[in-house]
Amino acid sequence: RSDLIITTGGLGPTEDDITYQIIARALNLKLIKYPEAEENLKKFLNKIKIKVSLSNLKQVYLPEGAKIIINQYGTAPAMILEKDNKIICSFPGVPHEMKNLIEENLIPYLKEKFPPSMIKKSKTLKITGLGESSVNELIRNYINKQTNFSFGIYANPEDIQVQVTTQAPTEKETDKLLQLSVNQLTKILGNYVYGTDKQSLEEVVGNLLKTKKLKVAVAESCTGGMLGEMITRIPGSSKYFQGGVISYNAKVKEDLLKVPPEVIRKYGEVSKEVAQLMAERVRRCCHSNIGISITGIAGPGGATEKKKVGLVHMALSDGKKTITQKHQLFGNRQLVRLRSTRRALNMLRMYLTKK
Amino acid sequence: RSDLIITTGGLGPTEDDITYQIIARALNLKLIKYPEAEENLKKFLNKIKIKVSLSNLKQVYLPEGAKIIINQYGTAPAMILEKDNKIICSFPGVPHEMKNLIEENLIPYLKEKFPPSMIKKSKTLKITGLGESSVNELIRNYINKQTNFSFGIYANPEDIQVQVTTQAPTEKETDKLLQLSVNQLTKILGNYVYGTDKQSLEEVVGNLLKTKKLKVAVAESCTGGMLGEMITRIPGSSKYFQGGVISYNAKVKEDLLKVPPEVIRKYGEVSKEVAQLMAERVRRCCHSNIGISITGIAGPGGATEKKKVGLVHMALSDGKKTITQKHQLFGNRQLVRLRSTRRALNMLRMYLTKK
Repeated sequence: RSDLIITTGGLGPTEDDITYQIIARALNLKLIKYPEAEENLKKFLNKIKIKVSLSNLKQVYLPEGAKIIINQYGTAPAMILEKDNKIICSFPGVPHEMKNLIEENLIPYLKEKFPPSMIKKSKTLKITGLGESSVNELIRNYINKQTNFSFGIYANPEDIQVQVTTQAPTEKETDKLLQLSVNQLTKILGNYVYGTDKQSLEEVVGNLLKTKKLKVAVAESCTGGMLGEMITRIPGSSKYFQGGVISYNAKVKEDLLKVPPEVIRKYGEVSKEVAQLMAERVRRCCHSNIGISITGIAGPGGATEKKKVGLVHMALSDGKKTITQKHQLFGNRQLVRLRSTRRALNMLRMYLTKK
Repeated sequence: RSDLIITTGGLGPTEDDITYQIIARALNLKLIKYPEAEENLKKFLNKIKIKVSLSNLKQVYLPEGAKIIINQYGTAPAMILEKDNKIICSFPGVPHEMKNLIEENLIPYLKEKFPPSMIKKSKTLKITGLGESSVNELIRNYINKQTNFSFGIYANPEDIQVQVTTQAPTEKETDKLLQLSVNQLTKILGNYVYGTDKQSLEEVVGNLLKTKKLKVAVAESCTGGMLGEMITRIPGSSKYFQGGVISYNAKVKEDLLKVPPEVIRKYGEVSKEVAQLMAERVRRCCHSNIGISITGIAGPGGATEKKKVGLVHMALSDGKKTITQKHQLFGNRQLVRLRSTRRALNMLRMYLTKK
């Protein structure tokens, strides 16, 4: 029922390798010896110092009329057989042989035989700071009006991704169409879009810091080092990341970051006031232009009447002013920590793009 | 053609979430509103302070006759639908929601619906500090002699895992058999086994620290906070983790950790001497019993003639003595960082189990 059949495997020397036999029987063709296959087989086995055996010689018989493809990676020849407007392509099953032969022979053959009438491409917008349903509300009107594009919205703990797919007769036209839709979506979603495709938030932030020649330091409480870890995933981050303090315990906040004990007593470790001081002090003691801080209750323990699990205060100081943010995040301990870290990175991105 | 279908995803609020619509159409069922789902949705969105939107309300319509499963982790209810001796189970696609709901609801349901005649169980030994082939060499003789068990050896960037599987008519017999093999393997592999099943290295280390009433602090260079982040994944880690310093830049090593500039000049930032001082100083300035440090070249840049990418020095100081380790690790930047962090955690585990 199919017009094109592609088989892999069953071309070897053993008893259970019967692909060519079955094809020949199904199409009522004879198996004939292909001298170029025999030559290649002998050359190949000689190279790896193995004697030609009788079972090997079985491999040089292919269905008559087949266009043989010599396999320089092994002993089994591949083939493409056209008959009665149907095509059968057989390739060896050994992974690297199959992969190489298909890339070098089958794909070019199919592209020439069936020139694609349409080129299909996708692009993904990466969004942070908005939930999945908010993204949907914002872009629904636009999406519903489109006929040339298909859309997918994907949520993961780190961000929301909107994938646009389209097709056109040429690559150039596809790219142009795709860019059109990406521009429209970016216009609607504004600064919530931080990048496209494989770009990560930490990479985008790193590039902004590099361009603006600014250095950053972190003071982390509930995230325990996650913000520093994420920033330093990027090769070359030493150009803009100075380091920081993991002030998990109040004593570390007091001694290393010089947060006055009375401030901690009065407002609590998880407070706007402490976050503010942490950002200001880490900026100074790590000799950076910007200090960022995170202090929160990741849970499951640590909550009080007024401060619930998921409460996180963060701050960004540039020496002139200090911005603060308060979030009530949800999810388990690790999700609260991850979301805090992403919010802090996004706070930094917003600061750098507004400047 | 299948008797049981399990779907995940497509239960969200957006236009492309159509799992329930498709199931209803395929089985010729109406979609009806489930009040308990609506109640849960409103409660959940209220908790995270998001307004109920029209697209959210779509989520409370399920095929009629479905046994609804309320999702306390998100907005999308799951369901189990029995019809004409076939079963369809639909669960949300958000990983943590799916995982929790399947463990709590689907697995118990299937166990009751299809009670097994033999009880099959597996246990996994987690091994660190040995490579896959070394583990294989050590246990091969034992494995080859066994007939009641099947074994799998799995390598991942964090550790090596040996999984033992066996079955018996009752749960008690299965457990007994399994424990027998686990004991034998643990005897062969010794202290390289750090835990079983879902136990993580950071959890094992945390329990040791808690039992011994010891506190730890970290000084991290190339790992940028990863060691602190990993230790603080464990709820209650504030009992034994004080915090630390991310001394990414040399200035931070000098100013916050008081590593003398001349030591850095003489030996370099990535050296035994600097690792030693980092561990000793962070121990003191963070008021902990133990200080651990990591300094290395994660790459791709930063290598010199003598110091290649993957060179990592680490140290552990307890105030009386300082242990050091030097590793030449392989893999890309993130793998070198991950492996460094695991080695440091294992150094701490070895120290705590020997004491």
